[in-house]
Amino acid sequence: MALSASQLQHHFLRIRENRLFEAAVIAVIVISALAVGAKTYPIDPQYRTALEALDLGVTLFFLTEILIRMAAERRLRDFFRQGWNVFDFIIVTASLVPLQDADIALVARLLRIFRVLRLVSIIPELRVLISALLISIPRMGYVALLMFIIFYIYGAVGSFLFGAINPDLWGNISVAMLTLFRIATFEDWTDVMYETMEVFPLSWVFYVTFIFLAAFVFLNMMIGIILDVMQREHERHSRESGEGEAGEVHWIRQHTESIEGRLARIETLLEGQAGGGRGRR
Amino acid sequence: MALSASQLQHHFLRIRENRLFEAAVIAVIVISALAVGAKTYPIDPQYRTALEALDLGVTLFFLTEILIRMAAERRLRDFFRQGWNVFDFIIVTASLVPLQDADIALVARLLRIFRVLRLVSIIPELRVLISALLISIPRMGYVALLMFIIFYIYGAVGSFLFGAINPDLWGNISVAMLTLFRIATFEDWTDVMYETMEVFPLSWVFYVTFIFLAAFVFLNMMIGIILDVMQREHERHSRESGEGEAGEVHWIRQHTESIEGRLARIETLLEGQAGGGRGRR
Amino acid sequence: MALSASQLQHHFLRIRENRLFEAAVIAVIVISALAVGAKTYPIDPQYRTALEALDLGVTLFFLTEILIRMAAERRLRDFFRQGWNVFDFIIVTASLVPLQDADIALVARLLRIFRVLRLVSIIPELRVLISALLISIPRMGYVALLMFIIFYIYGAVGSFLFGAINPDLWGNISVAMLTLFRIATFEDWTDVMYETMEVFPLSWVFYVTFIFLAAFVFLNMMIGIILDVMQREHERHSRESGEGEAGEVHWIRQHTESIEGRLARIETLLEGQAGGGRGRR
Amino acid sequence: MALSASQLQHHFLRIRENRLFEAAVIAVIVISALAVGAKTYPIDPQYRTALEALDLGVTLFFLTEILIRMAAERRLRDFFRQGWNVFDFIIVTASLVPLQDADIALVARLLRIFRVLRLVSIIPELRVLISALLISIPRMGYVALLMFIIFYIYGAVGSFLFGAINPDLWGNISVAMLTLFRIATFEDWTDVMYETMEVFPLSWVFYVTFIFLAAFVFLNMMIGIILDVMQREHERHSRESGEGEAGEVHWIRQHTESIEGRLARIETLLEGQAGGGRGRR
Repeated sequence: MALSASQLQHHFLRIRENRLFEAAVIAVIVISALAVGAKTYPIDPQYRTALEALDLGVTLFFLTEILIRMAAERRLRDFFRQGWNVFDFIIVTASLVPLQDADIALVARLLRIFRVLRLVSIIPELRVLISALLISIPRMGYVALLMFIIFYIYGAVGSFLFGAINPDLWGNISVAMLTLFRIATFEDWTDVMYETMEVFPLSWVFYVTFIFLAAFVFLNMMIGIILDVMQREHERHSRESGEGEAGEVHWIRQHTESIEGRLARIETLLEGQAGGGRGRR
Repeated sequence: MALSASQLQHHFLRIRENRLFEAAVIAVIVISALAVGAKTYPIDPQYRTALEALDLGVTLFFLTEILIRMAAERRLRDFFRQGWNVFDFIIVTASLVPLQDADIALVARLLRIFRVLRLVSIIPELRVLISALLISIPRMGYVALLMFIIFYIYGAVGSFLFGAINPDLWGNISVAMLTLFRIATFEDWTDVMYETMEVFPLSWVFYVTFIFLAAFVFLNMMIGIILDVMQREHERHSRESGEGEAGEVHWIRQHTESIEGRLARIETLLEGQAGGGRGRR
Repeated sequence: MALSASQLQHHFLRIRENRLFEAAVIAVIVISALAVGAKTYPIDPQYRTALEALDLGVTLFFLTEILIRMAAERRLRDFFRQGWNVFDFIIVTASLVPLQDADIALVARLLRIFRVLRLVSIIPELRVLISALLISIPRMGYVALLMFIIFYIYGAVGSFLFGAINPDLWGNISVAMLTLFRIATFEDWTDVMYETMEVFPLSWVFYVTFIFLAAFVFLNMMIGIILDVMQREHERHSRESGEGEAGEVHWIRQHTESIEGRLARIETLLEGQAGGGRGRR
Repeated sequence: MALSASQLQHHFLRIRENRLFEAAVIAVIVISALAVGAKTYPIDPQYRTALEALDLGVTLFFLTEILIRMAAERRLRDFFRQGWNVFDFIIVTASLVPLQDADIALVARLLRIFRVLRLVSIIPELRVLISALLISIPRMGYVALLMFIIFYIYGAVGSFLFGAINPDLWGNISVAMLTLFRIATFEDWTDVMYETMEVFPLSWVFYVTFIFLAAFVFLNMMIGIILDVMQREHERHSRESGEGEAGEVHWIRQHTESIEGRLARIETLLEGQAGGGRGRR
């Protein structure tokens, strides 16, 4: 019986590794994505039933697939150790929860949309892309903190000064920070400014300094992460392929080591000769 | 007669390689571009006739030119092997199709505009530029796919949540994705947001997270392609000219090889001496 | 007594270095930041009293903290030598000034907001970040000067030409420069342009050239500072860790030196031999 | 007399090289810039007279200065060989032309504004900055040409398709290209789009593809020039100072050459020994 379980596990492993199985999963994800899109259009009742049947089919397929992948692991714990598996598990189980209530039906629909995200976890290249971005984010965390501090201070100042002028935009610090985000995207920020300049003629200083700071820190954060990821990627690729500048530098480094070894041998030989020569003389 | 065909082909090749011929082609393209521009202004009927005559002349010239270039190739198949030739062929033949119908006259006019694109295929530097951009695009294809997934998910969510609030903006997933593109360009996005915030006060989370994600992935894609193209171009140029850092690294690599060779010879010499010395002793 | 003072100073130094003390300071800054945020909402009078008590507590805590840090220095002058200490001192003392007047109460409130900035001076990573940015700014000072010259010239031209058309936007050079800043952020700039194009149909040249120049110089300044900071940071990190390209180049440089030394010794040995050999012959 | 002329020239050269003279010129430029700014405000008639006197003084000072600099050159031709001198000469002489006519007074005023540009030609750092930018522009000329072709084609297509819908925006190719520039800056582009989508529901393709192309080529051009200038500057600086990666690579290259020379000498020595040894045997 223990053998039979192991055989079964091996069987599931073979299914999981099968490229056809992978292609089928991708196809089902795309179909479920199209179904989600189709449901945003007004549909005939007859097609609606078909769509609901399709939905149930996709749910069952995903359930089967994740059970196969779980069964393929030797221990269930190993399955949950990989972040992407946890990610898949949450998405699949979330759409299993029965939500018949008309009010919560919206939540069920929303949950089904997130199935499209499974494309990210199933295509290796997208997984690598996301991982690379996630690695860089903590390094830029302090830049994000700095940005939040800037928004918080300007939000508090804006709320104190302009709160009475336009409560919709500056009523409290949350609303003020949303208004500042809008200003940071340059969206009709002059309308906001001209309104407050009628009371505080110098308030343009507030806006201009904020735009400079925000644009600067935002660009810094974005470009910082991107360049960091790309440069590391570029160097790694160049070194591995041995092409490009970083690859050549790596090659030179290795050969410099061999040159040093050779020189050490030559020196030993010469010193032996010199010693021998001196000894003979 | 076979000789005569070969002679003719050689003759056409000489014409094609002629710099005067190339200059004439560029001149005719520019003239046809100006004619296209002129037709957007209200014109006197007498000039209109002149313009139409000019148009016919340009069409005939392009036809002659492409026939010469076809005749210059040994086999017609060789002509269609180069992408830019196919590009030229399509543009030229497309404007040959007779479209007398008043309704389809617009299509004929549009087709003539694309003749301006022949500037890209005739100027080598522009051809190189476009080729470099096209090479980079597949490498960034997965970033584009990621962007599409983000748009699709936000489009579906937006359509489900806000579809009833403003069908013009969120009616179905296509319209919602166009609205999201508008939001990604920061174009009056707050108007869209304030409208939905009246029903869902927390919907600002939807917009702010989308803007962050879209700006980030978009910048990533754009800067990624540009930096990639430039870095490769920069290193290639630096290596070829032997100037700059990459050129120097390449020089060092080659000379490290010659140093290693020289050291190997020295070692052999010394070992011979040592052996000889030992032998003599 | 001198001993006792030194003991006390040592005691204060121990407190300042204590990680718990640092954590307490950060906690108090965050609490004071939250209090600032809370005050932007309408609050019950009873909570208002609590908030004012909290405010007083924070003020006293900061005062104690800065006195401890002052006492921990051997000489008071050393305390003020570090820019960040001066920064903290100004923020803390500014909120001590008694401002009971209803009119100036706003100023007191604003001053308390700037306490949040103490987060920057207390978290080392943020301090490093700000320092790096500040170092780069003078290097980009001339770019900023160039930008100001562009704004000034376009402001003067705009004010002369369009001053009569719309005094609110172009009345004098200050207002014109603010309008130009708005145009540089692309904020409803076409409304400004279409208005002046009714009088000067060619005025689009003014706007288009300005947008090109401003976007170019602005991007130049921003990207310049960012890339400069990042590249230096990247190279420093790579060299220190010995990983990456810059680290490898540094390694090669050091080993090239040792190779040269070894070769010099070998040459001396050989010349000695040759001399000895010649001498013997 | 020939001697006297040479003495005079030497005298003028001494004045031109004088740092005090340079400082005076910068001061006068700044004063003239402030005067230009002041004239944009409504001024009392009495001050206006003072400003006009100041204006005349500045004009005379600039005239004297440029005559001194001309006299300091051995031949007048040498003066006009430097681009910046020609630039100064045009600015100074242009403000000399007497323009009493009320209508042309505006032109005279505008010409005086351009005197501020003399700051660029007098401050060496700004001159270097501008030169670096100008050097990069031709390299990016083909990207600019590509951008113009894109604008031209979209302008022609837009004019043909949408000309009848809104002649103010799409009436002819010039107006259409200005509208496209507006769309490229994202300025209220959806208003333009929604208007044409009522007639051509698929016209969003026109806008979305244009925005992608324009943003891409624009970013390419801008970032291209900036990175190019910075990278060359960075490498040059690094090489000259011998610090940083490029400096170290340069150092390694030079020392690799010396290592090769040393190895060649060692090989000659050894071959001589081997020959000698063989000869002796």
